[in-house]
Amino acid sequence: MAGGLTHFDAKGDAHMVDVSDKPVTSRIATAVGWVKMAQETFDIITEGRAKKGDVIGVARLAGIMGAKKTPDLIPLCHPLPVTKVAVEITPDADLPGLRIEASVKTTGQTGVEMEALTAVSTTALTVYDMAKAVDKRMEIGGIRVILKDGGKSGRFEAP
Amino acid sequence: MAGGLTHFDAKGDAHMVDVSDKPVTSRIATAVGWVKMAQETFDIITEGRAKKGDVIGVARLAGIMGAKKTPDLIPLCHPLPVTKVAVEITPDADLPGLRIEASVKTTGQTGVEMEALTAVSTTALTVYDMAKAVDKRMEIGGIRVILKDGGKSGRFEAP
Amino acid sequence: MAGGLTHFDAKGDAHMVDVSDKPVTSRIATAVGWVKMAQETFDIITEGRAKKGDVIGVARLAGIMGAKKTPDLIPLCHPLPVTKVAVEITPDADLPGLRIEASVKTTGQTGVEMEALTAVSTTALTVYDMAKAVDKRMEIGGIRVILKDGGKSGRFEAP
Amino acid sequence: MAGGLTHFDAKGDAHMVDVSDKPVTSRIATAVGWVKMAQETFDIITEGRAKKGDVIGVARLAGIMGAKKTPDLIPLCHPLPVTKVAVEITPDADLPGLRIEASVKTTGQTGVEMEALTAVSTTALTVYDMAKAVDKRMEIGGIRVILKDGGKSGRFEAP
Amino acid sequence: MAGGLTHFDAKGDAHMVDVSDKPVTSRIATAVGWVKMAQETFDIITEGRAKKGDVIGVARLAGIMGAKKTPDLIPLCHPLPVTKVAVEITPDADLPGLRIEASVKTTGQTGVEMEALTAVSTTALTVYDMAKAVDKRMEIGGIRVILKDGGKSGRFEAP
Amino acid sequence: MAGGLTHFDAKGDAHMVDVSDKPVTSRIATAVGWVKMAQETFDIITEGRAKKGDVIGVARLAGIMGAKKTPDLIPLCHPLPVTKVAVEITPDADLPGLRIEASVKTTGQTGVEMEALTAVSTTALTVYDMAKAVDKRMEIGGIRVILKDGGKSGRFEAP
Repeated sequence: MAGGLTHFDAKGDAHMVDVSDKPVTSRIATAVGWVKMAQETFDIITEGRAKKGDVIGVARLAGIMGAKKTPDLIPLCHPLPVTKVAVEITPDADLPGLRIEASVKTTGQTGVEMEALTAVSTTALTVYDMAKAVDKRMEIGGIRVILKDGGKSGRFEAP
Repeated sequence: MAGGLTHFDAKGDAHMVDVSDKPVTSRIATAVGWVKMAQETFDIITEGRAKKGDVIGVARLAGIMGAKKTPDLIPLCHPLPVTKVAVEITPDADLPGLRIEASVKTTGQTGVEMEALTAVSTTALTVYDMAKAVDKRMEIGGIRVILKDGGKSGRFEAP
Repeated sequence: MAGGLTHFDAKGDAHMVDVSDKPVTSRIATAVGWVKMAQETFDIITEGRAKKGDVIGVARLAGIMGAKKTPDLIPLCHPLPVTKVAVEITPDADLPGLRIEASVKTTGQTGVEMEALTAVSTTALTVYDMAKAVDKRMEIGGIRVILKDGGKSGRFEAP
Repeated sequence: MAGGLTHFDAKGDAHMVDVSDKPVTSRIATAVGWVKMAQETFDIITEGRAKKGDVIGVARLAGIMGAKKTPDLIPLCHPLPVTKVAVEITPDADLPGLRIEASVKTTGQTGVEMEALTAVSTTALTVYDMAKAVDKRMEIGGIRVILKDGGKSGRFEAP
Repeated sequence: MAGGLTHFDAKGDAHMVDVSDKPVTSRIATAVGWVKMAQETFDIITEGRAKKGDVIGVARLAGIMGAKKTPDLIPLCHPLPVTKVAVEITPDADLPGLRIEASVKTTGQTGVEMEALTAVSTTALTVYDMAKAVDKRMEIGGIRVILKDGGKSGRFEAP
Repeated sequence: MAGGLTHFDAKGDAHMVDVSDKPVTSRIATAVGWVKMAQETFDIITEGRAKKGDVIGVARLAGIMGAKKTPDLIPLCHPLPVTKVAVEITPDADLPGLRIEASVKTTGQTGVEMEALTAVSTTALTVYDMAKAVDKRMEIGGIRVILKDGGKSGRFEAP
């Protein structure tokens, strides 16, 4: 381990941490993020919600599927069978843009904050993809973990 | 198309845009982003760079592989054979954190900004994964496209 | 080749057909299929369309993404960059159930009928998944190619 | 939940159902389906079985592998470690065509009927792929669940 | 580039080589390898070939599918649409064991030796998997490229 | 079962072995292999280790990720959540070349020797990929299992 970085062994080589001896517990994590966009883009997307062209529905589904691809994307992440993924997208006129929140649960030996973060990221990227024809200046940010519970390290909450 | 959103047809149903008649041209896109972290985390990672535990090397590789997974992650994204992916990670003591820049090229019928954005996102997520044992409050942000060139819509640059 | 089956060589061993010398042409294929269900299930899904719980939207997206996974699923299928995927789902009160039609295009050396068939299959399976809590007796059928054009073997249409 | 559709929440948004609190039990599901083809195609495939060009062997293997890809294909399906997959293909001269039956087992928190259905679909698609050079009019149908057992909802059998 | 290693830039950072300006040419590569096993294992497998339990057929198919997964497995490998994959397995009583030869073709901007090597490796691993219940001491070796042609570096042949 | 080959049923058809009734136990497996290369290639890679162009770091990471792809690559392999993957690469001046050792752990119903072998293979292939610009005559070999423990069949060790 180098300076507390558990993904490295004594020689400094990256490895997948051994979680064999950790107990199987119920775990949950929640992550958030946002996509900021031009006012006009915001209007198109939020109107589409009600009428035609459901950007939000497609992006939310992409986020759920993205959570399942986490061990494929993050090299040292353990594969684990998620038992719940929910993604919420809330239009925020003040950004203006969309706020994203993803919650993931599992019953396993490691936490699911990476799954929650990957769900948020994939949702945000999909929003960008679907709206990029009208707005190339969108920005993705604010991606962080706000809740993690169920493991040895105890409950973590960030306001 | 709903309000200029090309990913929807006249009925408002999401579809993969028909690019069959677009010319095959050389295309490039560059995206950026950052991971902000505690000063202590920054010190561990940047020292590791020189000595033990190469967070930056692992994250950069994850970003390159992530670019190749773009059509898997983004529902309406066209699969295309990327011809170059480069990811640069630069420590920024003022954040403090890491700045990420990804450039992707292809010779094809659609742009590669989603590939560049996915590379940046995956790199940032991997940094989070590798440092989360010492810092759960890291934040990922500033993800946007700064260059896109080679398609019908012309050159786009954002400062 | 055994009895015209191009996927086998002279010894009868399965292989991926050599298409290196086939010209790159514009290709299109359309496939159809349906999911038959109880009247009550049909009512829930078609009402959901207008109000809450968009089974049709989710299934259509799954079909589009499924088309991109064709070479992963079908062992001897060539990978190729699809340039368009569209899936239409039409409620049919007489079935009762949903009729599915998928069209796929590419500019390449082989046809895309497998991509169109895989899109239809994946769409149908997703409908089943989403409605199985209320109806386990749904049936998927009528999956076939109705149009294929653009290759050496000429235009194929089935009524 | 909209009209009993468990894949939607109170707002009508699609999500992956929370199965965290469901007990881990032994589960099994069996699905069936068929590929109908021209008499001549049937003769080529069934003769190939004995001699050259084993369409049936390739398609059965594709079905087994397809079962493992279920959570990748079906957006809201939970990933779970299957403990058994078996696919049987039986020539039926009366169709004429091939009858497919897939059985899947797991020890987990959700059922495996989607895995069984995906195995049948993938098997059928692979048969189509391998025989399409001689017969474009094949039809895939009769895909349904005939047995599901091991969960809270009890045993389901369809004749 | 560090000492001729094209996968590293001037700073020594790994990247995916830029092949944008390389011409699209016909390319082919052939790789070989073997699985050495106990005499009794060899007898079971080669008899199975004729009668029951076709290890060779399953392994060959796995090799073909493995070639398509090359850019997923090898971090800096370019994705490219292979136009042919053939895998031959020949029992060699003198090893005793199975000799594997894989040929891959593409029309693209980079070579396909990694695809041919991955096909051989996956074939060999599958043989191991299928026979490991009777023989844990099998060894995989002799994996190398014997032919590469079609790129700028000219024809390479190894006896 | 044909001659002890558990992957075949009584008819000789390949299937995924039913492990539903096997106990969940701690399992470990270790596999080894090597890449032999020209002296000059060996010098470039081992010097790069210390300075620029870390072939060994990239290849080790590819091996870890490769282990997670095992059920995707090996047709009849059960998917299972690995709890640890470690890959060690040791330069051996006598080969000359690199020696690879991979250890994988799980808590599950089947062994992980295929995951360990796949990690070794993927590591070796990645070394080949990264050094092929300077040496096309490298050879991959010596891939075998040296330790397997935790299942019904007891401890297996090979010197």
